[in-house]
Amino acid sequence: MRRFLIDTDTASDDAVALLMALRSPDVHVEAITVVAGNVPLEPAVQNALYTVELCGKQTPVHAGLAKPILRDLEDGRHVHGYDGMGDIGLDLTGRTPAEGHAVDVIIDTICSSPGEITLVTLGPLSNVAVALLKEPRLAECVKECVVMGGCCVLPGNITPLAEFNIYVDPEAAKIVFESGMPLVLVGWEESITSGFITMEESAKLEAIGTKYSEFAVGIQRTLIDYLEKSTGMIGYDLPDPLAMAVALDASITTLERKRVDVIAGDGPARGQTVVDVWGVEGQPPNVDVAVKVSAEKFQTMLAELLKE
Amino acid sequence: MRRFLIDTDTASDDAVALLMALRSPDVHVEAITVVAGNVPLEPAVQNALYTVELCGKQTPVHAGLAKPILRDLEDGRHVHGYDGMGDIGLDLTGRTPAEGHAVDVIIDTICSSPGEITLVTLGPLSNVAVALLKEPRLAECVKECVVMGGCCVLPGNITPLAEFNIYVDPEAAKIVFESGMPLVLVGWEESITSGFITMEESAKLEAIGTKYSEFAVGIQRTLIDYLEKSTGMIGYDLPDPLAMAVALDASITTLERKRVDVIAGDGPARGQTVVDVWGVEGQPPNVDVAVKVSAEKFQTMLAELLKE
Amino acid sequence: MRRFLIDTDTASDDAVALLMALRSPDVHVEAITVVAGNVPLEPAVQNALYTVELCGKQTPVHAGLAKPILRDLEDGRHVHGYDGMGDIGLDLTGRTPAEGHAVDVIIDTICSSPGEITLVTLGPLSNVAVALLKEPRLAECVKECVVMGGCCVLPGNITPLAEFNIYVDPEAAKIVFESGMPLVLVGWEESITSGFITMEESAKLEAIGTKYSEFAVGIQRTLIDYLEKSTGMIGYDLPDPLAMAVALDASITTLERKRVDVIAGDGPARGQTVVDVWGVEGQPPNVDVAVKVSAEKFQTMLAELLKE
Amino acid sequence: MRRFLIDTDTASDDAVALLMALRSPDVHVEAITVVAGNVPLEPAVQNALYTVELCGKQTPVHAGLAKPILRDLEDGRHVHGYDGMGDIGLDLTGRTPAEGHAVDVIIDTICSSPGEITLVTLGPLSNVAVALLKEPRLAECVKECVVMGGCCVLPGNITPLAEFNIYVDPEAAKIVFESGMPLVLVGWEESITSGFITMEESAKLEAIGTKYSEFAVGIQRTLIDYLEKSTGMIGYDLPDPLAMAVALDASITTLERKRVDVIAGDGPARGQTVVDVWGVEGQPPNVDVAVKVSAEKFQTMLAELLKE
Repeated sequence: MRRFLIDTDTASDDAVALLMALRSPDVHVEAITVVAGNVPLEPAVQNALYTVELCGKQTPVHAGLAKPILRDLEDGRHVHGYDGMGDIGLDLTGRTPAEGHAVDVIIDTICSSPGEITLVTLGPLSNVAVALLKEPRLAECVKECVVMGGCCVLPGNITPLAEFNIYVDPEAAKIVFESGMPLVLVGWEESITSGFITMEESAKLEAIGTKYSEFAVGIQRTLIDYLEKSTGMIGYDLPDPLAMAVALDASITTLERKRVDVIAGDGPARGQTVVDVWGVEGQPPNVDVAVKVSAEKFQTMLAELLKE
Repeated sequence: MRRFLIDTDTASDDAVALLMALRSPDVHVEAITVVAGNVPLEPAVQNALYTVELCGKQTPVHAGLAKPILRDLEDGRHVHGYDGMGDIGLDLTGRTPAEGHAVDVIIDTICSSPGEITLVTLGPLSNVAVALLKEPRLAECVKECVVMGGCCVLPGNITPLAEFNIYVDPEAAKIVFESGMPLVLVGWEESITSGFITMEESAKLEAIGTKYSEFAVGIQRTLIDYLEKSTGMIGYDLPDPLAMAVALDASITTLERKRVDVIAGDGPARGQTVVDVWGVEGQPPNVDVAVKVSAEKFQTMLAELLKE
Repeated sequence: MRRFLIDTDTASDDAVALLMALRSPDVHVEAITVVAGNVPLEPAVQNALYTVELCGKQTPVHAGLAKPILRDLEDGRHVHGYDGMGDIGLDLTGRTPAEGHAVDVIIDTICSSPGEITLVTLGPLSNVAVALLKEPRLAECVKECVVMGGCCVLPGNITPLAEFNIYVDPEAAKIVFESGMPLVLVGWEESITSGFITMEESAKLEAIGTKYSEFAVGIQRTLIDYLEKSTGMIGYDLPDPLAMAVALDASITTLERKRVDVIAGDGPARGQTVVDVWGVEGQPPNVDVAVKVSAEKFQTMLAELLKE
Repeated sequence: MRRFLIDTDTASDDAVALLMALRSPDVHVEAITVVAGNVPLEPAVQNALYTVELCGKQTPVHAGLAKPILRDLEDGRHVHGYDGMGDIGLDLTGRTPAEGHAVDVIIDTICSSPGEITLVTLGPLSNVAVALLKEPRLAECVKECVVMGGCCVLPGNITPLAEFNIYVDPEAAKIVFESGMPLVLVGWEESITSGFITMEESAKLEAIGTKYSEFAVGIQRTLIDYLEKSTGMIGYDLPDPLAMAVALDASITTLERKRVDVIAGDGPARGQTVVDVWGVEGQPPNVDVAVKVSAEKFQTMLAELLKE
């Protein structure tokens, strides 16, 4: 049984990624830790709890940081809906998270089983960064950290240079990228290509006809509207499920080992993930970047996990 | 009995400040938390443990962050000696700190007794900042936080614009200054004036003739050399003891309520503490700045606490 | 006969400074070059032409840069009035400036008489900076450059850290301060102390009873209102006349030779003039800073030049 | 007859571009203005003069800025050779440039024939920027400005994010890109693909057997070595000739109208040219970016111009 810990700013695509991990027969999700991002901390916690309940699991959900390290939160409610789950009327209140702060749960879970736990991050890296500040050994203890974030090929989705998760807390990302932790990066360029679901593909997913497929497709409603309005694209991307798919089965992607640095601060390049193609910075590679993820294998895996 | 928690990057002047608090009859030091700054974390922990032992106390000493939030540590060994204690041959090895991470000790101690604990910080604010990131309620629970740091009147001691403690971890300082915590600031301008000890005054302190006075004066050796070489001043300043004196008895100073913001980042103004004299930024005051501390009262208090 | 070239963003205090130079019996003003600053370029040119005419002179007035090097102009019309001259109804239109661009006039005038011309700058340094970019030898050819600008002692007048002239075009100031030009700096701290005119002192100046005194006092009207509202001070400061007084007679001030660097860019320290008191930057001194200008001598000189 | 003005930091690839323009039968080169870049100003002027002489022309060559606006020059002698012309022993001394500063020549030539002159820039944009500062109408008077510079598709050639010409003087580039001037951008991504010459292709060019072909190939010697060492590529790129080819015949490329902004300052993104693909910045397009330049047409044009 493989062991996962998932850190998430749970909104529509995170929820699908959680569902994929929770329903994978050979994966045990040790804990879900929640961070502010797509939505504020409180709704993100509720969304995670709802998803766990839908899957019939008792996985503990722990609250973490309510804001980025140095900044106020800029959330993505205009993308994922006010409740983060497409505003389709789900009952997303009243569930109770587990005791224990996300930062401590990350440290304790991973450092008590060195080399065994895969960390999958679906939101801003605030929780993981503070965990690293408190316990730098976390970088050595984690088996692997699969990050949905960044754009190694321009453009980004929140500025011309940056992807949302990195942009929202660039200082946290800088801490994580420089920590020495073994990192796998699934960036925006893959999300919008290999991770994109057309309306025909979406209809096929919905036709699976389970409560899982209904949920996974239904909560993308506001995202569909947003993408059409802002970019003209018809359909929706699934960044977090794509990253989870890579975490579940790395054979669906090629990995290229590269040096990637994050630009922190408040300038126009805030949150840019810089790939040093020619090695001019003289720093060793620190990230395995997912390139050419198989869209077909991704959708097959997703469909399988949405079945009863 | 007043209750203190002291966060320190223990080197020569921190040690005197610790001694003052530990030997104050009406103060109970709940814990000492240690951060990297003047010296790296390990020697700082040992220096704190040595000082507690010298004072015949059992105060727990807890290790915290080994480096600033976003940067490598730039220490002050050229100022305070390689061991941080004047390199006078003290046996500063082999003592064992208490269990529990400084960040958790700060949160647990202060938040379990809301409104009762005075936090005194003598080093970079890395520990306190991470505690605030993990538990923002810390800002409301602390009775008061007396900070040795910053320069509200130029120049600084590490750059023309910045004082060492703030410069070393400006992002941590920014987090603390913007936290809403009740802050009292004892800055470099007071240290180098009201907190300055001439050689004549130093001789009087040494003449007290206790192990405390011998210790307090002896460990300033490298600092004396450094100041003469770099500034031409003969004697030494005691920033941390001055801040501790203000924490012990605020009547030795005037406090002016001001807006003070910290400049983070890597530019020439890194670590500057900006006082908005005319209120052009439109932010409410957040700090009580110590001005015109009484040098006489400070030295009288110090002398008293060095006696048997 | 001493020879001056004056670069000015002509508004109320510049006009008084121009008048002082134009009416000094032993000074010949070769040319007046105008830059955007207190007011946009067009009204600044008209204000300079009006002042020259008032003084019965034919001094050529040349237009220069209409905006700072890298930024849009942030003017000071809220301080000096919409017309820059106190909005007291002066006829400030229709006069014609001389041919020739300010940048070329600065270069040609100064470089054709090496070591003979004193440059006095009363506004942002955009014109002088572009002149230096085009002809770096300007730095060696100028006899001396007296700059109204900066604050070597905090606070500033436009942000807590910066004075208006430097803040408006910090990149230009950086070019000038690093040019090697012999610089005398008359900063905001002297303006607001030695250069401050109380209402009683103002009444005495007005009582001189010439068209010059009427003009010099009358055009400060909006400035008086602004200062009272924003700072509570009653009266007005005369930064540019104070700098001109230093240019006319350096014996009214003490000069301290210092290293002063300008912080460019868009951060909170934009336009700060950093004095390296302890020499930690290792750069040679580049500026003579005016300190303790004699308010009495300044006012005596001013009064003399306002007489018939 | 079409009329060109060429601004160049003349080194090996600039020289080929100059030769192309000077030998084009339907183009009149009004003047060549020189700026520091690949090599310091002095050798750049000599290299331009040598090239004009080789082509048997009397085109005036004017010296301009010896350094970027806000910085010291970082030249490219390690790329183009110490003399900038491949260090193959050409006699590159002793020729005399024309009178008149490059900045004035740019302004006077272009503004005296509004809408008629094509400006081609082959180096850092320092001269053009200072011309715009002195005479903003330049932006309306120029027919078109074809710029070799930038990388709209990552990576760059001097940092992971920036191309040399923009990196060397990013503030100048910012001024030009924001000036409103009609701009055509031929970036690094086209240079290294459509503008790349393999050794076989180079041999064919050399086989043309004229003094022009001998010159054009010979001076690439150090560039060939540099590229092999730093990137492993065998051959050489011709950025400036590619830009000149686009200026001579725009039909060899597709142009895409985009918003492109330059990041100034000293951070890791210094000199990055940011393309706002999704229009999130809300600024109007300002640049026609060359994409998919025809390598075949470029090489055919180049070969033609190297013939007797």
